[in-house]
Amino acid sequence: MNAEIVTIGDELLIGQVINTNASYIAEQLNSVGIFDDTMTTVGDDEASILKAFDHALSVHDVVVVTGGLGPTHDDITRAAVCKFFTTDLVVNAEAFENIKNRFANRNIALVRRNEEQALVPRGCTVIQNRHGTAPGYLFERHGKYFIVMPGVPAEMKGMMDEFVVPYFSKLGTGTSILHRTLKTTGIAESILADQIGDIGELLGTSTGASLAFLPGPTGVRLRITVRSSSRARAESTIRDVEQKIRAKAEQYIYGTDTEDIEAVVGRMLRERKMRLSVAESCTGGLIADRVTNVPGSSDYFERGMVTYSDESKRAELGVPGFFLERFGAVSREVAEAMALGIRTASNTDIGLSTTGIAGPTGGSEEKPVGLVWIGYSDRHETVALRFNFPGDRRIFKERVSQAALELVRRKLLKQAS
Amino acid sequence: MNAEIVTIGDELLIGQVINTNASYIAEQLNSVGIFDDTMTTVGDDEASILKAFDHALSVHDVVVVTGGLGPTHDDITRAAVCKFFTTDLVVNAEAFENIKNRFANRNIALVRRNEEQALVPRGCTVIQNRHGTAPGYLFERHGKYFIVMPGVPAEMKGMMDEFVVPYFSKLGTGTSILHRTLKTTGIAESILADQIGDIGELLGTSTGASLAFLPGPTGVRLRITVRSSSRARAESTIRDVEQKIRAKAEQYIYGTDTEDIEAVVGRMLRERKMRLSVAESCTGGLIADRVTNVPGSSDYFERGMVTYSDESKRAELGVPGFFLERFGAVSREVAEAMALGIRTASNTDIGLSTTGIAGPTGGSEEKPVGLVWIGYSDRHETVALRFNFPGDRRIFKERVSQAALELVRRKLLKQAS
Repeated sequence: MNAEIVTIGDELLIGQVINTNASYIAEQLNSVGIFDDTMTTVGDDEASILKAFDHALSVHDVVVVTGGLGPTHDDITRAAVCKFFTTDLVVNAEAFENIKNRFANRNIALVRRNEEQALVPRGCTVIQNRHGTAPGYLFERHGKYFIVMPGVPAEMKGMMDEFVVPYFSKLGTGTSILHRTLKTTGIAESILADQIGDIGELLGTSTGASLAFLPGPTGVRLRITVRSSSRARAESTIRDVEQKIRAKAEQYIYGTDTEDIEAVVGRMLRERKMRLSVAESCTGGLIADRVTNVPGSSDYFERGMVTYSDESKRAELGVPGFFLERFGAVSREVAEAMALGIRTASNTDIGLSTTGIAGPTGGSEEKPVGLVWIGYSDRHETVALRFNFPGDRRIFKERVSQAALELVRRKLLKQAS
Repeated sequence: MNAEIVTIGDELLIGQVINTNASYIAEQLNSVGIFDDTMTTVGDDEASILKAFDHALSVHDVVVVTGGLGPTHDDITRAAVCKFFTTDLVVNAEAFENIKNRFANRNIALVRRNEEQALVPRGCTVIQNRHGTAPGYLFERHGKYFIVMPGVPAEMKGMMDEFVVPYFSKLGTGTSILHRTLKTTGIAESILADQIGDIGELLGTSTGASLAFLPGPTGVRLRITVRSSSRARAESTIRDVEQKIRAKAEQYIYGTDTEDIEAVVGRMLRERKMRLSVAESCTGGLIADRVTNVPGSSDYFERGMVTYSDESKRAELGVPGFFLERFGAVSREVAEAMALGIRTASNTDIGLSTTGIAGPTGGSEEKPVGLVWIGYSDRHETVALRFNFPGDRRIFKERVSQAALELVRRKLLKQAS
């Protein structure tokens, strides 16, 4: 089955909101063998919406629509859907109960514009909203499927996970589309491409397989895709291609699929029964934030310090004052002292530190914006590595935090679990 | 002028990459009076690309394309562009120089697949890439404009800022489209809508103006849009509508347009010559990370601590051991002691703290997942507020960090600058 995803909202067209819904829907559709070949975004304008519905349904088996079901005046999708299917609105009792309960639980008085959200197009299957108030709709017409959901990401995700995916999974679509992504860091796209070599040769007899290079600020992802009528065959092909790539670039691959480096490092720390603490200057808390995004990280993350001032580096981490004066805060010596300092102060197995110049100001000829030292300390060694990551402030922080976590990963690889 | 934005890439269709390019391009086009009414995404497939090009150019004055210009085998946009305009490739000397220089600067040997990026379609205006290797193209045909750029966000942004925006700005488009967004936090969408009242009445005689409600996990944004043939008239209309909204909901509005609460709080701290320190448990460094995303934050941000363990709360912040035993780490008493502790340890004007249950595990009947105490301390008072933010771990962290920064903003409002 093929599909089109239609997202509705002026906020998307003017660039105010980034369209995260389309990617989530695509991923979930893929998982049940439905491949979307087009994504379209139109504004809160009835004529544009109707044109998009008409075009999408004429050439696709499945159309998934989000956005414009909210309680305010600029939400016009429901009216457009009624017009498109030539139907009117009826009250849905379950949706009304849901709305009443949600307001009662939060001790907020129900207002009329919320009550009206229980009105749904006649003749559709109602998709209940367990994460908000506006229900979704499914229309089945002549073997095609037309689905409408709210644009609030958590509500849309709930409906995808709890209704849409199980629905098509039960229906069966006859195709398996599998993806596997190998995530690398610390190597440029063109160098990685040369290391992997000729793609035709690599894929060889693996029919239905393809490989894509996806560069990003914190590394290049390699995506293997396989389409097959047999799920077992698709799985074995993907395993095969993955092994061939690993044979050529294993050392740069830190994780697979949606696995972040903080989750990988967390798993390695847990396996080795080791604890981590971090002292951040230029990353300003981003490493601690990433590490603690992982559920259960309190088992191995002891504490973090964001020592932005020289005084805090001295007082909290015991960095000698003459290091700061003689070498400057952005130096190998200070990075090492910070890593050692946080490890000692927190009594953990590993101390990690960053000190650099995030910019846009504060750079010099000798120490330009983008310069950073990453420090690492365990009971065997205390070292620091120098990097240069030009780019804006936020990208700088992301790249430094990635390189710091990669440094921990490489050190942990050498320690038996 | 109207426009369509066409983004190309299988990684978008399978949901692996979120389409941030389309929103950036839209925003920039709007700024020079070009309104995109459609965004389309297709895969790395020649037939789909050609069909999208053809449809987009037939009904729009401007078509902006990104993606698929990289050095690897899955990048086929350049070939599709040549086919679409019935042309072939020629070497562009400036692009070739740029590629050679970039590799020389990074001490990386130039490989053939990079050299080939200097080939561009004959007959186009070349858009040089100051942030990467692949050049972009502009075709002007029968009064219409067709622009192609790489999909790497930093490279595309560079071309938009340095070439596309100045180009259309010079050309002149005869329309002004202005947006102004008022960002609120701490109030639900439907309550805010009721507070603002009838939209028709609010906009009244402001012709060409519209208002949209954009809810998100950290608050509701109100977007005013005005289209006019006169820039001066558009500006005065927007000011007018903004004032009417502020008269009804001022207290919830923390900032405008792309201004984040961390930038607002930073500005207020700077004006008052006050310094901030934070002690985070459940937010795990996110508040420090957000505060230090603001350039120049080292002027008012002294230090942060991520005290994940009970031991670190005791040792670093002086939280009394019997508070932790008697009230538990997630309690008013501990939140207050943390805020006071970090303010005292760092000798700052304000101490801010968070302690809560981020989940997915660790909740209980009495203290469920989502419960959080936010502590605040200055020389006049030490207080803590209780919130309940159900949702996933990351959204929980974002909402808590937002509420904590909003608490600082409200307290600072009462202190003269």
